[in-house]
Amino acid sequence: MTASELRTARARDIGVRFGSLEVGRHNAITDVEGVRVGHVTLVDDGATDPPRGQARTGVTVVLPHAENLFREKVVAAFHIVNGFGKATGSTQVHELGVLETPIALTNTLSVGAAFEGLVQDALRTNPEIGRTTGTVNPVVAECSDARLNDIRALLVRPEHVLQAINAAKGGPVEEGSVGAGTGMTCYGWKGGIGTASRIVVGARRSSAVGALVLANFGQARDLRIAGVPVGELLLPPREHPPAQDAGGSCVVVLATSAPIDARQLGRLARRAQNGLARTGTFGEHGSGEYVIAFSTATRVAHAPTEPLTHVPLLSEDGPLIDLLFRAVTESTEEAVVNALVTARPIGSPDGMVSPPLPLDELTALLARTAAD
Amino acid sequence: MTASELRTARARDIGVRFGSLEVGRHNAITDVEGVRVGHVTLVDDGATDPPRGQARTGVTVVLPHAENLFREKVVAAFHIVNGFGKATGSTQVHELGVLETPIALTNTLSVGAAFEGLVQDALRTNPEIGRTTGTVNPVVAECSDARLNDIRALLVRPEHVLQAINAAKGGPVEEGSVGAGTGMTCYGWKGGIGTASRIVVGARRSSAVGALVLANFGQARDLRIAGVPVGELLLPPREHPPAQDAGGSCVVVLATSAPIDARQLGRLARRAQNGLARTGTFGEHGSGEYVIAFSTATRVAHAPTEPLTHVPLLSEDGPLIDLLFRAVTESTEEAVVNALVTARPIGSPDGMVSPPLPLDELTALLARTAAD
Amino acid sequence: MTASELRTARARDIGVRFGSLEVGRHNAITDVEGVRVGHVTLVDDGATDPPRGQARTGVTVVLPHAENLFREKVVAAFHIVNGFGKATGSTQVHELGVLETPIALTNTLSVGAAFEGLVQDALRTNPEIGRTTGTVNPVVAECSDARLNDIRALLVRPEHVLQAINAAKGGPVEEGSVGAGTGMTCYGWKGGIGTASRIVVGARRSSAVGALVLANFGQARDLRIAGVPVGELLLPPREHPPAQDAGGSCVVVLATSAPIDARQLGRLARRAQNGLARTGTFGEHGSGEYVIAFSTATRVAHAPTEPLTHVPLLSEDGPLIDLLFRAVTESTEEAVVNALVTARPIGSPDGMVSPPLPLDELTALLARTAAD
Amino acid sequence: MTASELRTARARDIGVRFGSLEVGRHNAITDVEGVRVGHVTLVDDGATDPPRGQARTGVTVVLPHAENLFREKVVAAFHIVNGFGKATGSTQVHELGVLETPIALTNTLSVGAAFEGLVQDALRTNPEIGRTTGTVNPVVAECSDARLNDIRALLVRPEHVLQAINAAKGGPVEEGSVGAGTGMTCYGWKGGIGTASRIVVGARRSSAVGALVLANFGQARDLRIAGVPVGELLLPPREHPPAQDAGGSCVVVLATSAPIDARQLGRLARRAQNGLARTGTFGEHGSGEYVIAFSTATRVAHAPTEPLTHVPLLSEDGPLIDLLFRAVTESTEEAVVNALVTARPIGSPDGMVSPPLPLDELTALLARTAAD
Repeated sequence: MTASELRTARARDIGVRFGSLEVGRHNAITDVEGVRVGHVTLVDDGATDPPRGQARTGVTVVLPHAENLFREKVVAAFHIVNGFGKATGSTQVHELGVLETPIALTNTLSVGAAFEGLVQDALRTNPEIGRTTGTVNPVVAECSDARLNDIRALLVRPEHVLQAINAAKGGPVEEGSVGAGTGMTCYGWKGGIGTASRIVVGARRSSAVGALVLANFGQARDLRIAGVPVGELLLPPREHPPAQDAGGSCVVVLATSAPIDARQLGRLARRAQNGLARTGTFGEHGSGEYVIAFSTATRVAHAPTEPLTHVPLLSEDGPLIDLLFRAVTESTEEAVVNALVTARPIGSPDGMVSPPLPLDELTALLARTAAD
Repeated sequence: MTASELRTARARDIGVRFGSLEVGRHNAITDVEGVRVGHVTLVDDGATDPPRGQARTGVTVVLPHAENLFREKVVAAFHIVNGFGKATGSTQVHELGVLETPIALTNTLSVGAAFEGLVQDALRTNPEIGRTTGTVNPVVAECSDARLNDIRALLVRPEHVLQAINAAKGGPVEEGSVGAGTGMTCYGWKGGIGTASRIVVGARRSSAVGALVLANFGQARDLRIAGVPVGELLLPPREHPPAQDAGGSCVVVLATSAPIDARQLGRLARRAQNGLARTGTFGEHGSGEYVIAFSTATRVAHAPTEPLTHVPLLSEDGPLIDLLFRAVTESTEEAVVNALVTARPIGSPDGMVSPPLPLDELTALLARTAAD
Repeated sequence: MTASELRTARARDIGVRFGSLEVGRHNAITDVEGVRVGHVTLVDDGATDPPRGQARTGVTVVLPHAENLFREKVVAAFHIVNGFGKATGSTQVHELGVLETPIALTNTLSVGAAFEGLVQDALRTNPEIGRTTGTVNPVVAECSDARLNDIRALLVRPEHVLQAINAAKGGPVEEGSVGAGTGMTCYGWKGGIGTASRIVVGARRSSAVGALVLANFGQARDLRIAGVPVGELLLPPREHPPAQDAGGSCVVVLATSAPIDARQLGRLARRAQNGLARTGTFGEHGSGEYVIAFSTATRVAHAPTEPLTHVPLLSEDGPLIDLLFRAVTESTEEAVVNALVTARPIGSPDGMVSPPLPLDELTALLARTAAD
Repeated sequence: MTASELRTARARDIGVRFGSLEVGRHNAITDVEGVRVGHVTLVDDGATDPPRGQARTGVTVVLPHAENLFREKVVAAFHIVNGFGKATGSTQVHELGVLETPIALTNTLSVGAAFEGLVQDALRTNPEIGRTTGTVNPVVAECSDARLNDIRALLVRPEHVLQAINAAKGGPVEEGSVGAGTGMTCYGWKGGIGTASRIVVGARRSSAVGALVLANFGQARDLRIAGVPVGELLLPPREHPPAQDAGGSCVVVLATSAPIDARQLGRLARRAQNGLARTGTFGEHGSGEYVIAFSTATRVAHAPTEPLTHVPLLSEDGPLIDLLFRAVTESTEEAVVNALVTARPIGSPDGMVSPPLPLDELTALLARTAAD
């Protein structure tokens, strides 16, 4: 098995260049202090007891901080590039500008189970919900893994969300065919989870921006990496039956430690499309694209002790806002390519295989087109 | 037991007047040809086997027609008055302008279960979902019944949605403390499900407009009925503890047989707020208000035989559009009052009681203020 | 001439009751400290030199504070109830959350002239615009006064905006057939400018909320005042030719001294529709309704000295937010009725007359239906 | 003067490749049958009589068809990528889904004059406006040319819009430093007007998609052409003073002959961002980006003879919708590059020069990085 088959390298490791900004320590969304990521991967051909069917699916959660998120919400925004998707929670995030549960990613038909998992998690840690206070707004986003996974079997259950939350940790993030990314396909190749980060300096501080994507979109011929139209140059992967190609999608989770508010987070979120576009997509009809952004710099208490608080707000007059926009664009682009580069091949029980992006060929192509 | 305790009368039966337009045969959303409503009511103090806990909750579904809704979608719109809520499906309805599942209403924390119920229903009747075609967009909206129901027990399960779909029928609609309305409170009195309809004539046809509300909002002193500030005049109901008053809400489902498209349905949906406002609310922070509108006049095939279709479209130059707007306003207002007038009192196991609007006093008040 | 013909009374003076909140000193938008209003009224039958044609039109401006608004912007929001209108500036207010010019109201076809007037004002006081800094976002909103005014003559010129700005002052606000309201019609009666205010207490402070409306919408039979369907009871005004009835509209300007941000101002703005609905409208197709809201509590410097500022933000957990929502609803409703009650009759040169709401009949009606 | 100084070549002429779709006859927005473009260019150093000041500005208009556009509107959509701009007309286009005036592009501070020019044009050809029918919704979009033009002088007058309308014609479109593009800067180089088109086949017809951009955005180092990061490789243009770099922007006008409705046009419009992103931009704070899309396939009569019409609607199930999305992405990208390639250098009277993109160096770079 060659190094590229082990797929331990990430895009930068094989020489892909992305923009000019400084990269965070782990080049991951977890470079935003306090952010943790957890995966539960479900791969099964029915041999487990009880059998779970032909599973190639899972759950990925992103947690903004390690404390009680319901009681200490973070400011947040939700942006929809193409609304062909089934995410929950968008309307309340838009209205109130806060996130109060972990963000759960899973397959399309399991959104209900993931919603219930987030509810169970909130109820477990907040006995006041539904008693002396109101309810909770679970944020779930999804892509369809129906090409590789028996999505009709509804294999993801609420407890998988709880498991993913328990498994969440900081530091390096497992990418590729893992968690919600297990059964995903991107530009015809095996896709899944990818992440990247940037560090920008301004307003007398250093701020991190991290992106985590669930990448399940695009057509093989459109793939561009670092500007190179590799999709036109690589021998294409075996095409999926067209009927199955409906329902690609992409979820982008953006985290930042910059002191910005919900309106400004919305502006960051709208730049994620630039990062996706740099990987070549023209924005397919069937590719629902949802962006959820939060800042760890401002917490909003569920039951504040003071009726009025003073919150930090970044002036948009200075250069930092553009650095943040640039960081979103770069890290979203890199996260998608990381998903492609790290994803191990996954075959489905009925013989469909989503092949991995061939790294040796890719490396050769990038070298050939480098302006030296 | 007096007639008003039986609560068999509706608002018009006790003399309330609402606007000038003609009312449909059943004065219900089902006056839109083909529309059906189904309820599952869960009332339990834990004596069932297995016990379901202290249930005062349920599910209500609205079905646009009796055929396969996934394959024969209807044009639809989603409007959000106050986004403090957890409805699902809004983003795809907005993007694609169609509804492809029944609309399910339930309590806030059961949205996940209802989502899964709608998925199960779609999978059952459409074996191609997730195999040779894409996925499905379940539309669920909610209010919190935590004042009367043990909302933390997550008593609504996916099968309750299937039962409600099976129970759906046309004709008169059961109102008040039924289905999703079982545990709801409105203007401090017992609330729940209400409905009303209007018939308007224009464009050489007669078109029906129907509203069905899940009414769970408002403060007692604000209630206005037919313009009369009855909330200021009635002896108020016992107040709930303030902490429990967070999380009121209202869902409005609008149906019409008028030949309008998704953009025009959005315009209808935005008029529902006028109907709510006529009942006195100023739009509380905690009252998430969601409007889902569909037209039965245009079906959109999931897999059309022709790439191009010709769809009827109402000219906004003529008088019919304003009649439709007026019909939405009037029928939404009347649906809320019907919910209040028909709702039977419901007590919770821990002694909280949501009292019914006192009809005899109401009738007297309305008579006293009538301009004769 | 009777007292009612002089039309010196406002709605409260003739006994109309609106809600329960405390009213500001002048019951006007100017009760928000620092806010000023200026009018320029153009009434001419062509006898001036040079003749201006058959003018029944004008300009009204609202200024948030007396200093340089471009350099010291105020937080703001823009909400659109029915987008059948030609307001400018909405997209930038939405994106950046600030207002940097006075708000100018005028007739529909004069929006361009008013835009240029606001530009001239900004250029005059800010020599750096277009030289060492960027440009400016003029906010103009409009209604059509074509029933009474020769709107085709484009009689409003940029200098009229400058004159209105120069004329702006605090204290009592002239209402009715004045400024932009000169040629407006509301519920079939003479409409125009109206204003009202509320004082609410919370978060250890007293906050003012003021509304100013340019009221030019509605059909006679729909008018409700304090809940009483006076439109059904009054002898209707002579109807306008239907073709001229297209293009009614309403602009609502909301000001507050409460410490809220742009997102929260958007929530306030969305409650203005409740106030309009209380006056009876169902939201006509042709009635473009635009709401512009600003808070004087937070200024945003064009060129801040610090890259990061700390801004006050009201917690939505406490009761003040609902008081603000209630204040918006009440003051918008009262402002519309004030416009109707104060508007003097205006006849157009071609014999059209927009009659004033008959106050004696109105007073009698309100007394007759009062619940005593 | 070399060929590249004459700047008669377009991007394809110098070897740039853009995507795979077929290009229209003129590779211009005018390839959509009936669409016409008109320019008025104002270049003046004050020597004219009367002097117009230091003008480097102008007006560009796009007309969907040659008949009376107010009476025969076209379906349309408005999408805002970054709302830091002053376009007019967006809210009514969004509400009603139609365009009823030519689209006028000009400099930021002249939006009022352009609005009035469109009003004058509509009044001239429609004597019923403001008399027996309502008003008109002028659509104007803008970028700031303050780097090269004396934008404070407000040199564009309403009559320039009328002149541009009179000058409008089909066939090849003049690009670069012309019309509204006269004073624009793009990626640090001279920008302005660019256009491109695609032909797609589906639904048993051939449909054209055309883009016209007013390109005034981006930083030199970010420019990518056909994926090649030429901005990093070219010797940068002399930088403008940072304070003057605020207020870049981009307007994209999209035309199509495909039979789609306003909702679907909105979906096309949202893909323009993909085309912009392919040219390297990350979406600067100061770059207001507005997209206006219309289809010539469906006309909407101002006063239709029938209250109900049947309109063609493209099924989104088939492949044509994705071809249209791809066409938008490709033609927007190419239009920006055409603006850069064709723009002649423009110097301002105070010595600022916006240099043209050096074509010989560009050609060499593209050749060097081509994957052969």
